[in-house]
This record gives sequence, C-alpha cells and structure tokens, in this order.
Amino acid sequence: MKDKYEKLTELAKKRGFFWPSFEIYGGVSGFYDLGPLGTLLKNNIKELWRKYFILKHQDMVVEIETSVITPKKVFEASGHLEHFTDPIVECLKCGRRFRADQLIEEATGRKVEGLSAEEMTRAIAEGGVKCPICGGELSEVRLFNLLFQTTIGPYKQDMGFFRPEAAQGMFTSFKRVHTIMRERMPLGIAQIGRVARNEISPRQGMVRLREFTIMEVEFFFDPENPTCELLSRCKGKLNILTTELRSKGIEKPEAWSPEEAIKEGVIKTPWLAYWMCVARDFVKELGVPEDEMFFEEKYPHERAHYATQTFDQLVKISRWGWVEVSGHAYRGDYDLSRHMKYSGQDMTVFKKYDKPIIVKRLKVQVDKAFIGRTFGKDAAKVFRAINQLSQDELIRLVKESGEKIPIGGIEIPKEAIKIQEVEEKVSGKRYIPHVVEPSFGAERLVLVVLDHAYTEEADRVVLKIPKRIAPIKAAVFPLVSDDRLVTVAKEIYSNLVSSGLTAVYDDSGSIGRRYARVDEIGVPYAVTVDFQTLEDNTVTIRDRDTKEQFRVKVAEAVAIIKKLVSF
Amino acid sequence: MKDKYEKLTELAKKRGFFWPSFEIYGGVSGFYDLGPLGTLLKNNIKELWRKYFILKHQDMVVEIETSVITPKKVFEASGHLEHFTDPIVECLKCGRRFRADQLIEEATGRKVEGLSAEEMTRAIAEGGVKCPICGGELSEVRLFNLLFQTTIGPYKQDMGFFRPEAAQGMFTSFKRVHTIMRERMPLGIAQIGRVARNEISPRQGMVRLREFTIMEVEFFFDPENPTCELLSRCKGKLNILTTELRSKGIEKPEAWSPEEAIKEGVIKTPWLAYWMCVARDFVKELGVPEDEMFFEEKYPHERAHYATQTFDQLVKISRWGWVEVSGHAYRGDYDLSRHMKYSGQDMTVFKKYDKPIIVKRLKVQVDKAFIGRTFGKDAAKVFRAINQLSQDELIRLVKESGEKIPIGGIEIPKEAIKIQEVEEKVSGKRYIPHVVEPSFGAERLVLVVLDHAYTEEADRVVLKIPKRIAPIKAAVFPLVSDDRLVTVAKEIYSNLVSSGLTAVYDDSGSIGRRYARVDEIGVPYAVTVDFQTLEDNTVTIRDRDTKEQFRVKVAEAVAIIKKLVSF
Repeated sequence: MKDKYEKLTELAKKRGFFWPSFEIYGGVSGFYDLGPLGTLLKNNIKELWRKYFILKHQDMVVEIETSVITPKKVFEASGHLEHFTDPIVECLKCGRRFRADQLIEEATGRKVEGLSAEEMTRAIAEGGVKCPICGGELSEVRLFNLLFQTTIGPYKQDMGFFRPEAAQGMFTSFKRVHTIMRERMPLGIAQIGRVARNEISPRQGMVRLREFTIMEVEFFFDPENPTCELLSRCKGKLNILTTELRSKGIEKPEAWSPEEAIKEGVIKTPWLAYWMCVARDFVKELGVPEDEMFFEEKYPHERAHYATQTFDQLVKISRWGWVEVSGHAYRGDYDLSRHMKYSGQDMTVFKKYDKPIIVKRLKVQVDKAFIGRTFGKDAAKVFRAINQLSQDELIRLVKESGEKIPIGGIEIPKEAIKIQEVEEKVSGKRYIPHVVEPSFGAERLVLVVLDHAYTEEADRVVLKIPKRIAPIKAAVFPLVSDDRLVTVAKEIYSNLVSSGLTAVYDDSGSIGRRYARVDEIGVPYAVTVDFQTLEDNTVTIRDRDTKEQFRVKVAEAVAIIKKLVSF
Repeated sequence: MKDKYEKLTELAKKRGFFWPSFEIYGGVSGFYDLGPLGTLLKNNIKELWRKYFILKHQDMVVEIETSVITPKKVFEASGHLEHFTDPIVECLKCGRRFRADQLIEEATGRKVEGLSAEEMTRAIAEGGVKCPICGGELSEVRLFNLLFQTTIGPYKQDMGFFRPEAAQGMFTSFKRVHTIMRERMPLGIAQIGRVARNEISPRQGMVRLREFTIMEVEFFFDPENPTCELLSRCKGKLNILTTELRSKGIEKPEAWSPEEAIKEGVIKTPWLAYWMCVARDFVKELGVPEDEMFFEEKYPHERAHYATQTFDQLVKISRWGWVEVSGHAYRGDYDLSRHMKYSGQDMTVFKKYDKPIIVKRLKVQVDKAFIGRTFGKDAAKVFRAINQLSQDELIRLVKESGEKIPIGGIEIPKEAIKIQEVEEKVSGKRYIPHVVEPSFGAERLVLVVLDHAYTEEADRVVLKIPKRIAPIKAAVFPLVSDDRLVTVAKEIYSNLVSSGLTAVYDDSGSIGRRYARVDEIGVPYAVTVDFQTLEDNTVTIRDRDTKEQFRVKVAEAVAIIKKLVSF
C-alpha cells in the first residue's frame, strides 16, 4: 500500500507541482524543481506571506533584496564560518562520508545531537558503529561546514559563499535602511530569496532541501523598550512546548495567551511572541488547523549560535510527522555587534529621550599655567604625556596617587590636574538594537499545503487547497462539444484571463472526467456552459469542496469568481 | 556638474531604491542590494513581465522554478564549461588580472571582441599594451570561465555551479513539463530566478551585475511548422539594426513590420519576431518610448555558442548610452540535442499527422527453410551471422553482391535473402523542438525605469514612474496637524493598506514639502485631507505628473486610486 506522502509526490510529479531536479541526469539529492502548478502555488504563498508580514505592517516592515553570493568577511563576522557545521565521518575502507550524528543514532539509538566531535568519535567507538554500506571502520568525526563555497572574481583568495540565510543581508544593510526609514524604530526588514545549505546527505525529499527560498523578517527594536503594542490585537492562544516540558518527557504543548507567555517568561520578549502569533495565523490560512501545529522551544544545544531563545513552529504532515515550517529566533544584538566589530562601522542607533536628562560626570581640568610655571621648557613634554591618556585613565591615576601623579615617567604635582563633578544635559543615547526573526522556507510550505489539501473522495483525489492560494482559480467547460457552447465557454475563459486570473479551458472527455481532472489539481471553481446558457445567458459555477452548483449570469461569472478567490 | 546618472544613483541610495552590497565592508563590485522602494519596483516589474509573457499566454506558457546550483554534467552538455568564458590577462609584475579585450581596446582603440586568445596575445605584443596599474609586462591571454564554481555535498569531485542563465533548468525539465501540459506544442516554459556570472572586473554599477534576477522564456516549437498565428495581433513595427546595416557602418535601425521582417529573412523564425513584439510592448509600458529602443542583430562572433540568430533589445539611458535590456536568441535544437546526447534520455516529442501517411520502405526477408536445406547443421551459424547485421546493412550487402552474399565469412546464395518493397502506415513522427528565447535582467530594468522616470522640475525631482508599477501607490496627508484631519487621514491610509495597496502617511512638514517628498519617490497620487473634508466628506487627490487635483468622496477615494494604479 502506498502511503499518502507517496501518493502525493506521485501526483505532484504527474500534474506538475514538483519533482527532483536534473532527473535526466539521475537527479542530485536535496534539489527539487517546482512545476507549473507548484510555482503558482508557491507564488501565492509568497504573496500571502507578504500580506501577513509586510503589507499589513507596511509602516514598519519593509522588504529588501540582497545578494545571494556573499564575501567571506560577512560570514566570519556572523559566525557561520565557525559554527555552521554538521559532524561528518568517513569510512576508512570505501571512502564514503556520512553525517555522524545520524549514523550513530541509527546504529545505536542514542541521541547525540549537540555533542562535540570528540564525544561523537567516542560514541562511535563505544557503540561499535561501522560503515553502513561496506562495514568498514570509521574515521574520527570532524566538523563539515555547510556553506557552499566559491570564488568571487579572478583571484583564488577572494572567497565567497552562497548565503545560508537571508538575514546577513539585512544586518549589513541595516544602517542604510534605518536612515531611509527616517530612523524609525522598531523596524522590520524582510526578504524573500534563495539560500543554500550544503547538507551532507539530504534524504527527506522536499522536506530537506539543499537550496530553497527563505522568507524572513529581521525585526529590530530597542531592548530597553521592548513593548509591542500590537500584541493586544493577537487573538487566541499559542500552543507551546517549552524545554521545561520537553525535559520532563512531555510531548503535549500547552496553550498560552501571548501576554501570559511573556509575563511568565515562557517567551523572552514581546515582539517574538507577536510574530509567532502572526506566523500561527498565516499557517492557519494555508490550511493547517491549530491542533496540527505548535511551537517547540529549542534546547540551548539545538539553537543556532546567534540565538538566545528559539521556537520552531512545527506542523504535522504525513510520513514525516512533525516538521518545522518556521523558526523564531531571538538573536539579541549578536549580529549587529559582530558586524560592528568586524567592519569597524557604527551599528548603533540614536534614541532621543522624551526630555533631556541631567547626568553627573567627572571632568578633568589641567592647569596649563601651573604646569608652565612648574616645568618651564619641559612643559611641552608634560602636556604630551597627559594627552596620551584618556579622561578615564587620568581620573583613575589622580584618584590613586598621593601628592605626585606619575605620568609617562614624570612626577606631576597634584595641583596640576583637578577633577570636578559637572552636570550635563543629555538628549538621548546610542544603542545596538535587538532582533527577533521569524523565518519560513517556502518550498516546505508548498508541501505542507498539499499534504493538508490532499483528500480522497471515493476513488478520486481532491486537492482542497485554500481557495485564495489555489494555483488555478477557475476552469471553464462547455458541457458538450457544441460550437455554440464552445464559443461562450472560450469567451468566459478569455475574460478570466484578461481579469488577471489563472484559468483552464477544457472540452475533451466527459464532464465528470473534466471535473475530476480539475479537482485533482485543486481548482476551486468550475464554470460549465450548458444548453440553458443559450436560453437565459446563465452558467453554473461548481464549488470544488461542496460540489454544490449555483447559476449566475454569464456577464457576472468572472467578477463573482474573482471576488471569491482574491485576498 | 553631476550627470543624471550620478544624481539618480545618489537618489537611489538616499531614498532606498538600490546601493552597492556589503557597503560596511567596502563593497564587492558587481553586487547591488535593492532597498525598500527598489524591491517594490522590481516586484511590480516582475508582475508586469508575468502578465505580458505568461498570464496573457497562459494556455501555452507556464512558469517553473528550478535550482540555481547545478551539477557539472548539465553545463558540460550545455557547452557553458567550454564556451562561457572571457579572455583574461595577468600582469607579470604586480599579479593583477584584467579582461584582455577591454584592456586592449582601451590601450589601442582596436576592437578585438571575438578574437581568439592567441590573437589577443599577439594584439598585446603589437600594441605594446602594459599593465595599466604598474606598467608591468602582461602574460599570455587565456580564457577564464565565468561560472561560479562550488562543490555539492562532501565529495570534492561533485562539482556544481551557480547557473548563469535559468534556461538549462527549462531544458532539463522540458520532457516532464511537456507531458504535464498534455504534450502541447508549441510550449513556452518561463522562469524568473537568480543567476550569476563571475565577471572578471565589473565596473558599470547597476548595469553590469555579477548576480541578478533573470526573467526568461524558452519557447519550444516544431521547426517544420514554425508558423505563429499570434503574429497578426502584433501592432506597429520593430526597429531593427541588422548586421548588414551594421557592417556598412549604419547606426540607424530600420522599422520593420514583423511579417515583412520574416518574409525578407531579417528575422529567421516567426516566434522570435512575436516575442520581440511582446518585449517591445512590455518595455514601452515601463516608460521607454519606442524611439529610444531598438533591436540590434548580433554578429556571429558576438552571439552565444548556442544561438543561430540573436537580437539584443537596446534602450537608451543616461551615462551608459545604449544598454541591452533583453536578448532574443534563436537556440534551434542545440540545447535539447546536447542534453539528449549527454543524458542518453529521449528529448524528442511526437507529432501526429492529421491523417496517417503511407511510406514505402524496403524489408528484408530471410528464407529460413532454404538456409536450413542448403547449410544443414551449419544453418544456426548462418542465422547468427545474419542477425549480427542491421536491416540497412543487410539491404546494402544484398544490393552490392552478386550471386553469393558474403556474411561473416560465409557465402550465402542470393535466394536466401530477399528484399521487398512494402508500404507502411505512419501516424506521425518524432522530432526535437526548436527554441526561441526572450530573456530579461530585472535589475537593469529597475535602472531603466528610474532613468526614464527621472525628471527635474524647477529645483525638485519628480520620478515619473509609470503609475501601475510605482512602488508606493498613494500618500495620505492631513493638510495641517489638526486631530480631526489626522483621524480621517489615518483612516484613509489604513483603508488603502487593507485594500492591498502600498501607501505612506505623512504629517510632518509643510504640505509642499510633503508633496515634494513623495514626488521624489514617484508616488502617483497624494490624498489630502483638509478642512473642507470635515464639512462635505471629500478629499483632494493630486496627480504626480499633471499636479492637477480633483475632489472625491472620502468613501470612494481608495477604490478610485486602486482602479487608477492596477494592471
């Protein structure tokens, strides 16, 4: 018996949702093509994501597009060169390479994620793990960097990488976007674009791709003022499985209102909770019921190196069970701080206080006349020695010294340098924003939508894709191949097309077979032109899910369908 | 004095259309980011392209999405590993590398495009060309492959490349899409996606990028039936500068109706002409007048290795003059044939004749009984010898021989093998489709649109971006900061947003300054709420280009704007 996933992937190939890339050359694992229907579906998912994450928030979230190929410095700064790795092991006999943690878990059942390379090497020895292909001895475990590496330009030393996340493009451009947005905070920078991760041996079909389209927002806010006013708009609860529950072996998430989750410290910062609510609503609209999704908090060893707290949004699909559709990471000021350090550029933003505050601080006053009198022609040397020190160093020296202050080998009388307490008006301060990041993989959502839409009715398949994201919005059929019916049907088809809708026209085979054909690819509405059309200028519109038919005026059919499927 | 291009790129940085990528690390030439406005503009250009090339032709053109990272075999087959090169030369003193043809042309004024590496090496010697930086001697010219190279998975030998065109994804998936489309011909497969070309030293800003978004259609048709019925729908003429004119030093293109151009052999195949017409209309809608664009036929040495005929669509922009915005290549059966050869997979499609045709052919009949009688126990050996030959070889042998036919060292009497002419019913034939390809770069179109939109009025800049593709569709202003006006204005803004439009709200600064600010980023309509609004519930809508204002009901404002800016 084929399982649902197998039937779905067969349908996907046959009708044009997706298939493995480069099939004629035997395929390369981890790469998939989207076919005509898959591309339409993915484009609609992207538009819906834009609506939820950008358009609705367009006063504070903007979309940008940055380069896929990225110079080495950026991933040095971001920590990916050091941390973006998987453990790899090689068979000493046949030379094959494997992901060490997977190999150990499969051979011994022992969970080893998060262990160091040395610990895994030991686990291999202890578990007597051998090459699963030839039975040979295995090498020591080493870390394999998952960045696809290349060279930019004609010099070998100019290393570049295919980005594994879009995020770094938002971080390196943060200051420019912030200026363009008239220094608005909080500020979201969104991006939809291609990323790639050189998985050692991907083997879950469309679930684990080496190259895919990421949809992510880096949302920047003031850590001293992390309040999210929008949170009160969020309805309902978030299903959350905390690490606390997980560590007790509990698998059932708890429902939290976002406010409660923040109050109780379950979610560490309000904007993280807000975007999780948005993510929940977005995935619901893709056709996933709330009881088939939850947010799993990750253990520290499961989190990426930049994250202080991370939740994965998990959704249930056939064959693979719970899969991650989005990640919600609290990246703090990690990335901006690192780029500030590695680039030497200022990454702080200025916060103006509502009203200036008075700050007391110590100020150094050097008595130049006194020094001139005391040191005569050596005075210049004394000034040079003093100038080499910072204000803070001077203050420390003065405080620590007795009557004479030793500076640059010179003993300076205390009277020469005075410390005063002064009051200063400060109008604001500079700070490095914190970041929360909701991040989705578009192709996996295509699979999730299809998996939830896949329905068998009697011996037929109906793809109940949510109507607004269905790839083809309408089908037009003449009931039979009568020229008069065909003419009307073709005109309706052509009106659907010029109104910007995707549509198909079909006049071959029985009407039942034609309905079945469009049900199988999830077309929400089928317009049928019959003999009554010739009498009263009406057609039937059939609903894919209810199978109900209603008659409408020919002239109104297109507008009615457009209204039913638009978002 | 700053030229228009400089002023435009400054505006683009300041207001958020585009800027060099990785600025905080000093930038990497050939990479640009699109900012918030640039991304909106590019997305609108993509949608408009989809409308012209896909949506309007959705019964025969479908969009797919294939991998960026591509295994080596594909580019071996496509010829890119061999041919996708630029000549490079190295300074023997300082080690710097340069594009040889550019260096020679700049130093000597001699046009050397299309010359071999050896010929360029000679040109360097003859012209006394030295390193432009240090004056050192130059190496021999060699070919530098422009593919970005990487490794797929953990084995060094599994070479992969960042695709330089989307086309190969359409070719390798052609058969699957053809099957999905119920074997429809002609058939267009479109793709919008990222590509990269490792230019040796790009130096034209946004004009020459190492990484960009390509929008291309591979259009497959039967070379024995290349007729394009849609051609009659094309209005107007195409401005074409043929190689014939070019070789005479003529720079002014001639206007051809597409039909005439095909009849006279100026354009080699009808579908090529058709998509050129679509490209012309598309670029016109981007704001480029017809007299600022033409199609330049490329000389054989200027064409890519796969092309039989190529036209570049050139558009005039400031600073750079005529730049290519699209390429129109007749690729013949080059790609499918090569993939058929390299993959061993059948790339032909079947064409059913309207009615079966009768074909006469020769058939071999072996008289087994006769052979049995003649050769006795050696008969089996004779049969084996005969079976080793193909029908065609047998026929040739029989025709060439006298009374005895020598097969596998055995002399067989002529009576044993008879050749008969038979008639056969043939219902169709298999053939390799031909391909024409219109191909656009999206980022360059962003630049072209901005360049044509850039207008100075008195001391202000107005970006007259065609309204349907303008990044922000509307602005809403309260005339002054009066709470009652602000409330209405914010409500209109929020209605614009929920109706799916991009909009800005602004209440800071004088109304004149706010108009100027949105003119500068090309917002087509500005809605102003004034005191009359409080009396009669009307607002003014101001047109960016005419500066005319008209009053409309508040309740109707959003719908009116939506209608004015939608496509």
